Order: sequence, then structure tokens, then C-alpha cells
Amino acid sequence: MTTQNITKIALVGFGTVGSSVAKLLHTLNLPNLRLTHIYNRGIAGKRGSAEAAFVPADAIWTEDIEDLLTSDADVIVELMGGLDPAGPWIERALASGKSVVTANKQLIAYQGPALLAKAAATNVHLLHGAAVAGGVPVIPGITQGLGGDQITRISGILNGTCNFILSKMEAGARYSEVLAEAQSLGYAESDPTADVGGFDARAKLCILARIGMHVELDPEQVATQTIALVDAVDFAYAKELGCTIRQVSRVQLSSTSPDSMYARVAPMLVPRESPIAWSHGTQNMVVTTGRFGGDVVFSGHGAGGEATAVAVLSDLLAVSQNSRPVAFPVTPRPVTGDSVAPHYLRFIVDDKPGIVSAIAGALSKVGANIDSIIQRPGYPKNRLAFVVTTEPCLTSTIAEAVESMGKMDCMLEPPLSLQILVIDDKDEPTA
Amino acid sequence: MTTQNITKIALVGFGTVGSSVAKLLHTLNLPNLRLTHIYNRGIAGKRGSAEAAFVPADAIWTEDIEDLLTSDADVIVELMGGLDPAGPWIERALASGKSVVTANKQLIAYQGPALLAKAAATNVHLLHGAAVAGGVPVIPGITQGLGGDQITRISGILNGTCNFILSKMEAGARYSEVLAEAQSLGYAESDPTADVGGFDARAKLCILARIGMHVELDPEQVATQTIALVDAVDFAYAKELGCTIRQVSRVQLSSTSPDSMYARVAPMLVPRESPIAWSHGTQNMVVTTGRFGGDVVFSGHGAGGEATAVAVLSDLLAVSQNSRPVAFPVTPRPVTGDSVAPHYLRFIVDDKPGIVSAIAGALSKVGANIDSIIQRPGYPKNRLAFVVTTEPCLTSTIAEAVESMGKMDCMLEPPLSLQILVIDDKDEPTA
Repeated sequence: MTTQNITKIALVGFGTVGSSVAKLLHTLNLPNLRLTHIYNRGIAGKRGSAEAAFVPADAIWTEDIEDLLTSDADVIVELMGGLDPAGPWIERALASGKSVVTANKQLIAYQGPALLAKAAATNVHLLHGAAVAGGVPVIPGITQGLGGDQITRISGILNGTCNFILSKMEAGARYSEVLAEAQSLGYAESDPTADVGGFDARAKLCILARIGMHVELDPEQVATQTIALVDAVDFAYAKELGCTIRQVSRVQLSSTSPDSMYARVAPMLVPRESPIAWSHGTQNMVVTTGRFGGDVVFSGHGAGGEATAVAVLSDLLAVSQNSRPVAFPVTPRPVTGDSVAPHYLRFIVDDKPGIVSAIAGALSKVGANIDSIIQRPGYPKNRLAFVVTTEPCLTSTIAEAVESMGKMDCMLEPPLSLQILVIDDKDEPTA
Repeated sequence: MTTQNITKIALVGFGTVGSSVAKLLHTLNLPNLRLTHIYNRGIAGKRGSAEAAFVPADAIWTEDIEDLLTSDADVIVELMGGLDPAGPWIERALASGKSVVTANKQLIAYQGPALLAKAAATNVHLLHGAAVAGGVPVIPGITQGLGGDQITRISGILNGTCNFILSKMEAGARYSEVLAEAQSLGYAESDPTADVGGFDARAKLCILARIGMHVELDPEQVATQTIALVDAVDFAYAKELGCTIRQVSRVQLSSTSPDSMYARVAPMLVPRESPIAWSHGTQNMVVTTGRFGGDVVFSGHGAGGEATAVAVLSDLLAVSQNSRPVAFPVTPRPVTGDSVAPHYLRFIVDDKPGIVSAIAGALSKVGANIDSIIQRPGYPKNRLAFVVTTEPCLTSTIAEAVESMGKMDCMLEPPLSLQILVIDDKDEPTA
């Protein structure tokens, strides 16, 4: 083996994932991959850490990114996240003929096509298998294995923090408690907005839409709904409806707006028989629906240093062997969060006569049909939780009705409105 | 676009999958892929069939393979199956500089490395994504996405026919009835031995072991056990044990024989919480266990013309774009079907005093410990079905005891012995 075969790797970021990449490179001893440079702020502390034991003695540690960008490294592994300065640095690396492997979902969601074009211009690789679902090989699986289908829908559990929170709530925990637990375990940030608000998942959803459906979506236009308003009472009612609640990310052709895509990241009621309901804890799951191949489920560990490092290492192997993914032209498409679905409406009211009639009236006024009204026993009259489910209708229609209901005197909280997923075919592993 | 960019495709076999490939090529209108040649016996009938409507008018139909092998086609798509003549034809195609896409699991299981070497020698592609799990992108997912892990175990539901039969039996059907139904639906051959005996699945298991664990196994050495001896009564007892029964294909490092692999295709008791129990009907599922990334589940339609054609088309796209999979050196390894597991033993006896004592004695003699003895009510004394489960011990040890028990006068049938899968970690999606 000559040194020409060696792929020299420069790590940008030596945190949880970066140190796991170093560990796996050391432990797996993959052919021809060598860690040569590490950039991080405060390297004195990093070099002395236990994780640094896996870094080759002759690797260069630096706090100056120029040392990497002007080095002889063949691949930059970017693990900082965020658009800036990661974006400009990656652009410079690509322009100078270095390949890039990144886990940066926001950057790839917002700037993927432009960066891929830059990589193509200098004939280098830009791979981002770690940007979606960590250790679950969704990106290579879809790219290399489902290009021969026409994917009509992608549904996913793309945020492990939300899945952890909601599956703990399903088991009886309260939102605030389990969020605190997730924070103490390192699953959730001190500001959990990106996770619970759906902003993390929507970036991943846009990447999946691009690679699977060959459409380019603006992440800002993807509708999101926070999981923070989901209450223990909703799990009790969901159970009565044969469902659980998950943060679901979903993209499909819009049924309401031609040439648009429906895309939404929101807590939704998921039937227990759906594979979407299988995942628990911090797991991720992606279900693609193909016109010809039907539903395909990918599931596993979406986060964590070592699982994410597996995706990085797999991409590094591809770079070192010059294994290029199949590429497709992508088309920009407008996005709507509106779709026809049955809806779950939960009310917390100070009970008095006429409430159900008023709610039914508000739904009737917008043309929405009630499918069921459920009131579990045991809630106090002055803080009564009950649920109405509707037949399939537009989310925007329901929103209109909900807005008017929210103004009713008896409402102690704004009504919570969630889409209910429908299983298309019970014999299929349908989402 | 110049004609130089067109990839000319020659189909060998115009049956269910072949005609679906033609349909998808027509319908998806993928860039640069053109169907130019079709080989089949009896082309007069094929050309006139409804499926032929998707074949371009200028495609050449022939009953002489030489017409394809000497043509200007760039890729041969081999969909005949079997070792001969498919093997020699593929060798000739590769030698003459044609790429090959095949769904032929037996050929790839037995001759994969030799054929891949021939493809490398002439710098062409040999892709076989359709050979395992049809439309589920297990092969590209593992090859491109899990190369950075160390896969320690692969478990799968690799034969849709067996899964159809066993999941129907779980719902109450009898083996003979459901086999007949599978045959009438076209899921099972008139001679179902390859499916129910495990010979189809073991070929796929060997391919998975090669691509995921980088070990080369002799398919003939992989232990198989037929599902034909599983009875309705076994599902009743399995249910009492919190399990169902599936034909499981599994490969992992042997715990009993250093440097060997444990590989087995057999009906096994699967805990209901295991993802292996999720799949039903003709679905396929593969669960890889990685040292770093944990368990990854792939699931979907393993068979059917269009699902399989999706895998073929995806491979054709890779060929047309010169997208080469990551390659790993593979090492031949001996195989054992023996492993330490809890076992399920089911007896059909003409009941009389002392039977349990004799069975316990036979187990004690080989050093196996009983975990439970279960006798459901309602079976007649002269044809009593009851079950013993053991603590983990070697399958070979149990086989020794079962052989001696089989000689007992009271046994109306040979005892059925099945391995019981264990979930390693209830928080994980473990197989």
C-alpha cells in the first residue's frame, strides 16, 4: 500500500461526534483512512481528554481553521453544525479540491444543491449521510436503493429528543418532567426549541424530500407545530382512539395545491398498528412510500456520538474509494402544511350546558363533520378535558373553526388540534 | 444528450420481474436508460402479452442468448435464476465488457466473489440489489451506510412465502391450507421445498453476511430447519410464552467455535416486542446489530415483480452513472448452526404417568435445565400436546436429548425443538 492510497482526514469539531469518529477510526482500523488534523476551540482541554487517546500521536491539533484548509488533508469532516462559519469553510474546502463529509442538517437543508454543485465543479465528494437519522442508513438506502421507484410520500420520526419525550409521556410522564430528564441526559438542549418546535426535523425532512422525491423545499416554508402543548390527557384520549402521539415529519404531493408539496412537522395521532408507532425512546424511523415498491421502513438510532460516527465513517469509506452516489436533478417546489386528514380536537373547559352544541356549530359552520365525541370519566367539571374527532377535512378549515372556538368563554386553554394519520392498507406496513 | 450517454439494457428473462422492469423503465422514464434487447424462450407468446406493451417498439426480441451477448447492450439484466446457464452467461457478459444487474440470489451466494473479480477485471459493474429482500434497499443501505460500523449480527425475515404461511398460521390457519393458498396466490412454488426448507433464505443470508460482516460462508454449511413441522399448537404455546413463530435467518460470530460463524435458517420463537415479530404477510425484514451503531431495521416488500424491479432499476441507475459501491475484502469462514439459546420443545404424546419425569431425565442427562413446563387444557389424553422450555444451552445438546426422547414409546411424533430468540435490551429495537 502506497501513501497515495491513504485518505487524510481533518476533523472540524472534537465534541461527542468528533471524538467518536476518532475512536471508530482507531478501533475499526479501516483501510487507508488516517486522521491527520483536528480543529477545535480550546484544544488544550480537548487534547488532554480521555477521548483524545484515540487520536494518532502525529495528528495536528489546531485552533486555526486555516491550518486545515491549507493542509494536505483530503477530506474535511465538518461536525460544528450551523450555517456560519461552517458554510463558508466548506465552500473553501470544496473549492480547494478537498472532499467534505458533514453531519450538518441545517446547512445541507438550506444550501445542499449549491454546495453539491461546488463539489462537482472541483470533482470532489460532498457526503452527508450523518445529517439525517444518524446511524440509520436512510440517505444511502434511498439514494442507491430506491432511485428506481417513484416515492410519493416520506414519513418520519426524525427527532430523537421529541420521540424520547413523547414515548415517556405515553408511559405516563409529564412533559415538563421528561423534558428536564432529557436535558439532564444530554438528549435535549437547554433551549429545546429547535427540537420540540420541529425546526430540527424540518431540515431533515427537506433533505429527505430532495434525495427521495427530487424536490427542493424551502425549510422556512415547512409548517411546524410544537409538541410542548401535548398533555398527558392527550395520550389518554389517543389510547382510546387506538393511537399514540408522535412528532411526525411528513412530505407528500399536495392534494390541495397542484405542483405543491404538503410538508409538515407536528405532533400527530398515530395508529398503534402503524410502523410510525413502533419507534420509542430516542429512535429514528423513516417510512418511504413508493408507487411500485410500496412502503419501506428504516429504523434505528438517530443520534448519539457513535451511531452518528458510523454514518461519517461510512461516508469516509465512500470518499476513499471514490464511490459516488447516484444523482438526480431536483426541482424547487412550493410547500403547504395544509392537507385533508381526520383531526383530533382537545378542549379544556369550565363545563356548562351548551358547549358541545357550540363546538358542533363552529365545526358545522366551516363544513367539518364530527366523527366522534369522547369524554373520559374522572375530570373535574371546572376543568373538563374532552375530545372531538372529525372526518377528513382540511387542516386550514379546522384551524378556522378552532380559532372561533378559542374565543368561547368556557375555554380554559386554546383547543389543541392534531392531524390523525390514516393507515391506507392494513395488510401493508403503511405509515 | 448524446447517444453516448444512453445505457442500453438487455433483459434475460421476461417473466414477472422482467416485465415489471420494462414497465418501470417505460413509466419512470429514467434518464439515459433504454431497453434494447429481450431474451426469453417462446418469445412469440411473450411479445403478444399485455406486459409487452411497455417494451419499446424497436427493442430486439430473441430466443438466442448469443444475440444479447454479442450485441451492443451495455448491461445485461439477468432474471432467470439458478446457477446454470445464468452463471456462464454472466461470466461471458462480464468478460466482454458488459455490466450485469442480477436478482439471482443462488448464483451470488455461491459465486459472488469470483464474479465480482471478473467484473473488476474488465472494469464493469456487477450489482445484485434485487437478490436479497427485493424492494427493501438492504444491500445498498448496508454497503454504503454501515461500512463504518462493525456488524456483529444480522437477523432477517428473508423469505416472504414462509412469513406469509407463518403469519397466517399465527392467525389460526393450518399449515397445509395456507401453503395451498400461498401456492394459488403464486407466493409458493408447487414444490415449496426451497422456501419452507430454508434454502432460499440461506442463500440470502450468506450474501448479507458477505456484504455486512465481510465473511464468506458456504451456503451448504448453513444449518436449516423446515417450517413444515410447525403446527397450530405451537402458535398457541408460543403465545403463552409471549412469542410468535417466524422463519428467522441469523448469522453472528459463534460463541462456541472460535473463528467460526453461527448461521442458521429455522423457525424460531420470537418475542412479540422484537422487531422480527413486526413483519407479517409476505414482508421481509433485516435487522443488523452494530458494535457502535446498535440495531438498524430495514423492512418492506421482499418479493413481487414491481418491488423487485425497483431494486433492478436502482442498480441500473448506478451502472448508468458509474456509481460504484464501497468494496471490502472478504474472508472465508467456517459455519456452525450450533449456539447457546433457550429452547422450546413440543411433545405430542399418548399420555401416561412418568412422561414428564422421563423427559426431565433426558434433559438432565445432557446437562440442560428446564425453565418451564406448560400444558394447556383441552388436548385429549391420547394425543396430548405439551411444551418444555429450557434455559440457554447448546442446540446440539438439546438435539442429543431430543433424539433419546424420540425413542420413548409414548411419543406420537418426533419432538419439535426450536430456538427461542432473546431480546438483549428491552430499550433497544433488538432482534
